Amino acid sequence: MNRTLIATLPDHVGETVRVQGWLHATRALGRTNFVLLRDRSGVVQILTPPDGARDLPPRESVLEVEGQVVRDARAALGVELHAPVLTVLSPSSGSPALDLAKPALTASLPFVLDHAPVSLRHATRQAAARLSAALVQGFRTALEAEGFVEVFTPKVLGTATEGGANVFRLDYFGRAAFLAQSPQFYKQMLVGALERVYEVGPVFRAEPHDTVRHLSQYTSLDVELGFIESWRDVAAVLQRVMAAMMRSAPSTIPGVPVPPVPDPLPVIHFADALEMLGAALGADLAGEPDLAPAHERWLCEWAETQYGSDFLLVVGYPLAHRPFYTHPDPERPGYSAGFDLLFRGQEIVTGGQRLHRHADYLAALSARGWDPTPYASYLEAFQAGMPPHGGFAIGLERVVQKLVGAANVREVCLFPRDVHRLAP
Amino acid sequence: MNRTLIATLPDHVGETVRVQGWLHATRALGRTNFVLLRDRSGVVQILTPPDGARDLPPRESVLEVEGQVVRDARAALGVELHAPVLTVLSPSSGSPALDLAKPALTASLPFVLDHAPVSLRHATRQAAARLSAALVQGFRTALEAEGFVEVFTPKVLGTATEGGANVFRLDYFGRAAFLAQSPQFYKQMLVGALERVYEVGPVFRAEPHDTVRHLSQYTSLDVELGFIESWRDVAAVLQRVMAAMMRSAPSTIPGVPVPPVPDPLPVIHFADALEMLGAALGADLAGEPDLAPAHERWLCEWAETQYGSDFLLVVGYPLAHRPFYTHPDPERPGYSAGFDLLFRGQEIVTGGQRLHRHADYLAALSARGWDPTPYASYLEAFQAGMPPHGGFAIGLERVVQKLVGAANVREVCLFPRDVHRLAP
Repeated sequence: MNRTLIATLPDHVGETVRVQGWLHATRALGRTNFVLLRDRSGVVQILTPPDGARDLPPRESVLEVEGQVVRDARAALGVELHAPVLTVLSPSSGSPALDLAKPALTASLPFVLDHAPVSLRHATRQAAARLSAALVQGFRTALEAEGFVEVFTPKVLGTATEGGANVFRLDYFGRAAFLAQSPQFYKQMLVGALERVYEVGPVFRAEPHDTVRHLSQYTSLDVELGFIESWRDVAAVLQRVMAAMMRSAPSTIPGVPVPPVPDPLPVIHFADALEMLGAALGADLAGEPDLAPAHERWLCEWAETQYGSDFLLVVGYPLAHRPFYTHPDPERPGYSAGFDLLFRGQEIVTGGQRLHRHADYLAALSARGWDPTPYASYLEAFQAGMPPHGGFAIGLERVVQKLVGAANVREVCLFPRDVHRLAP
Repeated sequence: MNRTLIATLPDHVGETVRVQGWLHATRALGRTNFVLLRDRSGVVQILTPPDGARDLPPRESVLEVEGQVVRDARAALGVELHAPVLTVLSPSSGSPALDLAKPALTASLPFVLDHAPVSLRHATRQAAARLSAALVQGFRTALEAEGFVEVFTPKVLGTATEGGANVFRLDYFGRAAFLAQSPQFYKQMLVGALERVYEVGPVFRAEPHDTVRHLSQYTSLDVELGFIESWRDVAAVLQRVMAAMMRSAPSTIPGVPVPPVPDPLPVIHFADALEMLGAALGADLAGEPDLAPAHERWLCEWAETQYGSDFLLVVGYPLAHRPFYTHPDPERPGYSAGFDLLFRGQEIVTGGQRLHRHADYLAALSARGWDPTPYASYLEAFQAGMPPHGGFAIGLERVVQKLVGAANVREVCLFPRDVHRLAP
């Protein structure tokens, strides 16, 4: 007899079926005993004899159950299994570290993360994993439809050239090498070949930040495209991609409120944002190079009121505070054509237009007093003719965190890595 | 005027269009001069005045051209552009390091790889990149249809526990850490939560092999599924996945011969393979723990003759030579339920059934004299009840190499990493 998935049992009322899964919990209602069995599709309650719980193996043991599907409106699934024959496929060695049948994981976060092989079995963790997968599917679908090609780039680099000191150093056959902080240089070089590329992959940040929103490895959804007129073309792709991601969410996570993605995204210039923040907070923010987290939260509340939008695109961050490859805003000297997308109080995307002329790269490096030698390969792409281009990178875990309303990004990452955590 | 992609020009005969791309080459046919312009979709020839080539910028400069689409059967595209108005969007700084208009890149492989930002613009390199992307799309589509969930696992590990000394070591906030050789432990742990998972991601091998088929970073297509009866269930998924990958190829790369994937895959037991090889090669191979590359080539020729198949599944590798988590073959003591898939003379997939009982893991570690302490998190998954499960990992670059018939795997990897190469 083939296995029947639990979620499909309502289609088999009156039949004898075989289900397989984990012993989720036992329940006694008056003189009636139930075994709850969980598989990847759902949980079913199985009516067992009064003494049926006596010989049960511990929770999380893997069982096979043959039984009859009986309609019962009181069961969450609308059906339950009667007259079960239970076989233990693989016993657990005792009660699991966490109670997976409770609606929430109430243990401390470090304990939950230490026991990831068990805690990831909890409904909330499975939901976050499925939501992550669905968002990435939406991301890819939108980009494939617009002629983007998926690429796979090196995560081990010979030079730490992208900027910032926060890189992990490794021993590469006796030489120093570095983990990639992003696929930035590669995706730009590939615009010269494929025009439109994207990558879904791990990036590594050796930032010693111990906050609820920083991970040392996260999943970056990277996009780069050529033949743009300005950052607005990049923002338009971002709007469509984000809308596709949000559309992909509801089928996976019923109950997660999925926000609309306005088209176009509401935009505020960095300088205007500072001015507004200064007035609202009674602070002198003139000359600030970046937005503080509190400013991002304030701006998101403003966008919610002003536009009814959970998203706000802040453009024109000061050029001096953006990476050297950032294109200046042709209309506002000192400001860049770079943007961040804020979502529910937090930055989830960084992007913008990049420089594309070789001479501009040499000037940008020179202005920072940087030797162009380590950039030779990167610069060769611009020597060889590069179209105006731009792109963005979405931090997957942050989007999921904000969508499910998790207080800490570690709650939505399968096996998080941070300044303290390297296991499991 | 909106940009028109070159491949769609035959739909615009008689119209004035705007195209954008790279100055691919110039051509003089008698007294007629052409500029060839390349974009991501193709190449168009543009009729230029007799002195039109005089003011042209160097090859690979980025141009915008407005012109009239005229039917001409002599043109490869069936149309060409007349009366062009050329604008230079972004000049190149001189002739590129390689001639991209020739049918093949004839420079030495190190030179080609050193100049990846240019060489990746060549038609053959673009084709390999698009083929890689298409194969991964096929891989995902097949798995999504069967209820697999995409996952994202850590690439930085606190312990080098998977086996083998060939791991890269890094400095992780002052502690030793290691780059993941595979997502093996994680995908198994996730079977306990999601039952069916897959991952597309980089893996890192610090093997000092300097061969045409080894990379220190490659793209691993990983699959793991629970509730199997035996390795045959895993092989059946592999067959469907591989068939979907091959189906995805032709639309991308016309001219690449795409082999059929027999259902089921032809299978030979490792012991029978050794016996056959011994007889054919007149060698005593009894007790050999693995197949040599020459053996794999011989077996593939045999499978071609015997089954008309480019694929051959070799199952039952000696248990002692497989990783400790490999399930034994219940029918043949000393042999495993592990397999390799050979394709056109080369191993492209490793997989099989894994152990699933906690006690079996303790015994397997003990038999090797290994301390179970560093495996505590991994073992917790089996303590908590794990179904019979198995999976496999496909080496993407090797599949592409064999499909396009490249002599060296580095020819089909965008930016290869090996014992000598860390750039670009």
